[in-house]
Amino acid sequence: MPDHVSSTSDPRILFGERLIQLRKLRGWSQERLSLESGVARSYLGGVERGQRNIALLNICRLAEALSVSPEELLRFDAS
Amino acid sequence: MPDHVSSTSDPRILFGERLIQLRKLRGWSQERLSLESGVARSYLGGVERGQRNIALLNICRLAEALSVSPEELLRFDAS
Repeated sequence: MPDHVSSTSDPRILFGERLIQLRKLRGWSQERLSLESGVARSYLGGVERGQRNIALLNICRLAEALSVSPEELLRFDAS
Repeated sequence: MPDHVSSTSDPRILFGERLIQLRKLRGWSQERLSLESGVARSYLGGVERGQRNIALLNICRLAEALSVSPEELLRFDAS
């Protein structure tokens, strides 16, 4: 198993990992994603650390900023 | 456009429509989905009407109850 993939089943952790993956794919910092999405950077940090139970509207804001569909952001088992 | 598909872009409305679609595909009532998922029926009603900004953990509870992946529940443009 690649070391960036967690074995946890906590959706908050899985979502955070997926978000980091997609953000880095674009070469963006947390601050850049915060600016593009309108989601506060400190909140974003909590989401990426799996500490936040992010809701639908913010999921969609992040997806739009990253130019992916909301469903793609929830594709936890993506390689 | 099929009449069950809304032209709105509000993710809460789109999610509600998708949830109804998947629930009916299983032939389940709101009450049955509530029992299977542990999500309160009154809350579920609000989600299906697009009035709730449902968060990740509840999205995943509903997906698991419906035997679909969380990403499938966010596949808003599915036919």
